[in-house]
Amino acid sequence: MKKNYPLAKVYSLLESGPVIMLSSAYKGRANVMTLSWHSMIDFDPPLVGCVIGDGSHTFKLVKASKECVINIPTFAIAAKAVACGNVSGAKADKFEKFGLTPQPASLVRAPLIKECYASLECRLHDARLAGKYNLFIFKVVKAWVDGAVKDPRTVHHRGGENFFVAGRTVKIPNKMA
Amino acid sequence: MKKNYPLAKVYSLLESGPVIMLSSAYKGRANVMTLSWHSMIDFDPPLVGCVIGDGSHTFKLVKASKECVINIPTFAIAAKAVACGNVSGAKADKFEKFGLTPQPASLVRAPLIKECYASLECRLHDARLAGKYNLFIFKVVKAWVDGAVKDPRTVHHRGGENFFVAGRTVKIPNKMA
Repeated sequence: MKKNYPLAKVYSLLESGPVIMLSSAYKGRANVMTLSWHSMIDFDPPLVGCVIGDGSHTFKLVKASKECVINIPTFAIAAKAVACGNVSGAKADKFEKFGLTPQPASLVRAPLIKECYASLECRLHDARLAGKYNLFIFKVVKAWVDGAVKDPRTVHHRGGENFFVAGRTVKIPNKMA
Repeated sequence: MKKNYPLAKVYSLLESGPVIMLSSAYKGRANVMTLSWHSMIDFDPPLVGCVIGDGSHTFKLVKASKECVINIPTFAIAAKAVACGNVSGAKADKFEKFGLTPQPASLVRAPLIKECYASLECRLHDARLAGKYNLFIFKVVKAWVDGAVKDPRTVHHRGGENFFVAGRTVKIPNKMA
């Protein structure tokens, strides 16, 4: 069960570089795209940069709706997440095809993905580099996290068919904390 | 021993989201900064976006030199990498302070860090968003990787003093490969 999560802590969900599932919606059609090319840009309000291929259906939906939800899967649904990246949303309803459950978001029209342990509702903040680099900067406006998930087994891409799963948390003294 | 690595494969080193050590140099002064806010932007030539705090010494060196080296540490030097992020290069020679070994790069003046298993020589490619978001887009012009390191135990930040180490590689069918 996901609960409201402080926006100022969103960076801690993303800066380890997990594979994310980006959901979008426009005129009643929803889609999901799996990607690894993202970075935190600012802490609070949290800004996140995402590279979304301009040939993708998601590119069109995000451009038109100016919204998305960044969902973070764990290893439990890794195969589904990767499979989602191998089909175009122009040709298939990926929620149906891969047995993913859309849930209504609170502030945007794009759906949360129930099977992901964290979901971040986003509004498009800056599209200045979307033309040249497919880089969209989103502002997270609402965050949901399943508090029961400790040390989430996020999935990280090493290229091609190679991935690794996040290990347990280790503490390293960090004055910047 | 690091060897020349194909530029078209650089994405596979970075898209899992490891902590990186960014080295820079200007007028004979070199520095190292540790950061997690980076993303691949394009495959080949490889473009990488990095957020570099505008209060940092590295921000000044990169602005002035228009170059850097992105070095990727493994868990073996995680404590050093994190400690590097806790001291300003304006006050200390971090190579000396943390026992890191600078090595000459081939195409840029910033040094490689010997103790890191991979080092990517970069030229500043686009600083359009450096003013507003501290976001620099670099082009990797030469890559060096220690081929003896399989399944590198890269370090990933969960926020604060919390990190995890990359686990072994798992294969997941991926037609996008």
